Amino acid sequence: MRVCRHRRLVSAFALLLCVSVALHLLAGLLLWSAPHTTCEPSQCPIAQPHTHLAADDRTQPAPADTAATARRRGQELRAGEVNVTKLEALFSHALYNLHVPPSPDEDWLLKVRTKASEGHDEEQWLSDSKEGYDPIQWNSSTDTHPPWLRFHLGISRWQLYQHGDANVAVLLQQMATNRIVSAVQKTGGTQMKLVMTFPNYGQALFKPMKQERLEETNVNLFYFSDFERHNAEIAAFHLDRILGFRRIPPVVGRLIDVIKDIKDVTTDHKLARTFFTSPVGNTCFYGQCSYYCSTEHAVCGRPRTLEGSLAAMLPDLSLSPRRSWRNPWRRSYSRSKLALWETTPTYCNSVKKTPPYDQGTRLVDLIDMTILDFLQSNMDRHHYETFEIFGNNTFLIHLDNGRAFGRYSKDEPSILTPLVQCCRIRRSTLMRLRLLSLPEYRLSDVMRASLSRDPLAVVAPVLAEHHLAALNRRLATVLHAVQRCLLQHTDVIHDDIPDYPG
Amino acid sequence: MRVCRHRRLVSAFALLLCVSVALHLLAGLLLWSAPHTTCEPSQCPIAQPHTHLAADDRTQPAPADTAATARRRGQELRAGEVNVTKLEALFSHALYNLHVPPSPDEDWLLKVRTKASEGHDEEQWLSDSKEGYDPIQWNSSTDTHPPWLRFHLGISRWQLYQHGDANVAVLLQQMATNRIVSAVQKTGGTQMKLVMTFPNYGQALFKPMKQERLEETNVNLFYFSDFERHNAEIAAFHLDRILGFRRIPPVVGRLIDVIKDIKDVTTDHKLARTFFTSPVGNTCFYGQCSYYCSTEHAVCGRPRTLEGSLAAMLPDLSLSPRRSWRNPWRRSYSRSKLALWETTPTYCNSVKKTPPYDQGTRLVDLIDMTILDFLQSNMDRHHYETFEIFGNNTFLIHLDNGRAFGRYSKDEPSILTPLVQCCRIRRSTLMRLRLLSLPEYRLSDVMRASLSRDPLAVVAPVLAEHHLAALNRRLATVLHAVQRCLLQHTDVIHDDIPDYPG
Repeated sequence: MRVCRHRRLVSAFALLLCVSVALHLLAGLLLWSAPHTTCEPSQCPIAQPHTHLAADDRTQPAPADTAATARRRGQELRAGEVNVTKLEALFSHALYNLHVPPSPDEDWLLKVRTKASEGHDEEQWLSDSKEGYDPIQWNSSTDTHPPWLRFHLGISRWQLYQHGDANVAVLLQQMATNRIVSAVQKTGGTQMKLVMTFPNYGQALFKPMKQERLEETNVNLFYFSDFERHNAEIAAFHLDRILGFRRIPPVVGRLIDVIKDIKDVTTDHKLARTFFTSPVGNTCFYGQCSYYCSTEHAVCGRPRTLEGSLAAMLPDLSLSPRRSWRNPWRRSYSRSKLALWETTPTYCNSVKKTPPYDQGTRLVDLIDMTILDFLQSNMDRHHYETFEIFGNNTFLIHLDNGRAFGRYSKDEPSILTPLVQCCRIRRSTLMRLRLLSLPEYRLSDVMRASLSRDPLAVVAPVLAEHHLAALNRRLATVLHAVQRCLLQHTDVIHDDIPDYPG
Repeated sequence: MRVCRHRRLVSAFALLLCVSVALHLLAGLLLWSAPHTTCEPSQCPIAQPHTHLAADDRTQPAPADTAATARRRGQELRAGEVNVTKLEALFSHALYNLHVPPSPDEDWLLKVRTKASEGHDEEQWLSDSKEGYDPIQWNSSTDTHPPWLRFHLGISRWQLYQHGDANVAVLLQQMATNRIVSAVQKTGGTQMKLVMTFPNYGQALFKPMKQERLEETNVNLFYFSDFERHNAEIAAFHLDRILGFRRIPPVVGRLIDVIKDIKDVTTDHKLARTFFTSPVGNTCFYGQCSYYCSTEHAVCGRPRTLEGSLAAMLPDLSLSPRRSWRNPWRRSYSRSKLALWETTPTYCNSVKKTPPYDQGTRLVDLIDMTILDFLQSNMDRHHYETFEIFGNNTFLIHLDNGRAFGRYSKDEPSILTPLVQCCRIRRSTLMRLRLLSLPEYRLSDVMRASLSRDPLAVVAPVLAEHHLAALNRRLATVLHAVQRCLLQHTDVIHDDIPDYPG
């Protein structure tokens, strides 16, 4: 069966058709997960590195990120990458390798059909390779699954991927190197971003470089007018992983050729029309969007080479719908108005009584997100998402971190307001934060080590040293805030790891 | 007679009415100059420092800028201002103090009524001081004229002001210090600028600071998308004066209070509505215009203090209409198209045959402008203006230099195309350029000295050293271009100073 006929499709519609065919194939391969569980929130696993694999061997996870495998990885890294051993030690620490019971079937986002008899046989997944896409030869055995599909299959009720999941590195590598066969603008949002497609039907969200590493956001810009930064997207993924959350889809840096990887392969006429050659001969484009999509704010190659970030796409909304939640501590998105929480110190009392914050882990999930955002100075968390199928008992997806890391010389205390007003925090989170404040696991050092693995690190460090230093400073602020809570309240700690000593 | 009744006028219309009343008064004070002269272009005076004053003693010019007066001025300057003696020496040089015959009456832009019997008596110029404006007590004796009026009265067929005219310093001082009683957006143009009015009815065009001194224009920005720079306006005035042209109205730097000097006094509601407080508490505004008038590009005080340039306004168009000429070497103002001159090496041959370039000084005037623009790297000279009353035998007004000095690390050879293609230059210009290339008058040194007199120099040098160094480099390029012309052609020099030795 041929999935797509022509190598260069003549319209975005045709491309969508292609993607839709791929999705259709995928839908045939997958089954929806079972109805929601009702596990007691404080008992729900937060990390599953040693989970025994389900019978379908869904993600073929790598061996846990032990010191041995970390050492092997370390040897592969370039000389001069410092503090890699600190990162290895961190990821080998018991707090990242907690024993958790196997996940029940209904805790996986997607299920793989295990029997060919369920409607399709293997021949049906074969596609023609002439379209620029690889022939599809996937079957119900995960051996044949591309890394993006393994990533999707590994999403559970509690995290996007498992600690030490070797597929993450494979997925990053694939996004960083695979040929780009399509690039179209993503609709929605205020700034230009592109959905890029790879020959294996994997997709990634591309955000171009807009700001130099040491450039700080203009102090007079409001958070809602700030640029999105490709390196913030990359750094946020690493930070979230280091914090042990695993709630940000994998993001990798890449140098692309704006002609070969965008202009020549796009079916998006509106995008194609915005390409031009700048006065110094660089190829530039600006797309169509509500902010910064004009000649004056064009994104330019040097002369064709452009830095950007590629974030793995989550399963299509038609396969796994998501729910968007308004952040109770959302900012006003007005130049003059303050939000209610900014003027009401007791604001959290009412939030605590309001579903879904009145039960389960939602409130401490939000505090986790708050801590991530304070550390990376992201003021733009107006909404967060969850997978609809998991109901209220699930993790919060930390999507869209492009406005983080805009400033290193200044912290934004208001981001920490939910923690300060609610005085609640997961015990596992607090213990990992304390770990990261110790010299042997220092946050800046493990971030530097982690980011040194990104392909862009050979061009320039993903985060300038000033940003890494700011992380330590902000971590100390978070820990101080928790200490103040502990002095004033008795119900600060949400003990999600009752068996863990200390 | 009361000119304006209320201190704070309720609408821009009312302000315009005020200005119109002032203009009306002024029109009563002035007479149009006589019909055009037909002086032989090569004989027309280019500088009139020693011109005997007309009977009406129109501008009460200062004694010529002799070494003695320059020394006195030098003593007033702060210690550490270097190269002031070079500037003094330059302005004392014979090339800046050429003997020129007295100007005939018809060579002045405006004429003052000399008889009270001509329709008005002195009482009529009296206005009420309660409106925030000074009482008008001008009469036909120039003793009472405010500096802006003296400036207007000093405009001749050949220059905007005389070499060594002491009124220029007075006018600069007035614009830099006098209370601002009104500030409204100037319509037209692509970027925000304000017309500010002083209590003596003088007006100046305000351009706010938009770029740090060492910041260079993004290489991918087209000349037509570049920011306007307040310091470019200031520096252009000084450069034009140093080149001996005197074709740019006086411009001075000033720190203004965006609340007191704009928001509190404006009658422009559209402007007032764009004021807001930035996240760090700075007062910002952005006005209404086609480029860069949005929250993201707001102009901000620190917290209320804003640097800007104030350029003396020329006489109102109703008093002295101007003609706008399309520059034959105008750029395409397109991202992709080239102009005809860019692809036609013989382009000047046809220009030379086309009126008004086929006779008089228009072509060498344009070459003068070309040299000014190449030195300051201004690519945005799409039009130039002349005073209509002087017909074709007059100087070119070098208005609007805000896009100059955008880059110091790179020159733009194409700006010099008219010189390269036409191989014509005024002898007086060439000799002054050669003077400025000598160590004892080095262009960068005299510019540094001249700019050190601007009030903003106490905040930061108006031009960064890199820009001053670029001036020397570009001057050498101009002189090389002339040398190449001299090797290939015999009619390069337009001898406007036949009596001058050399």
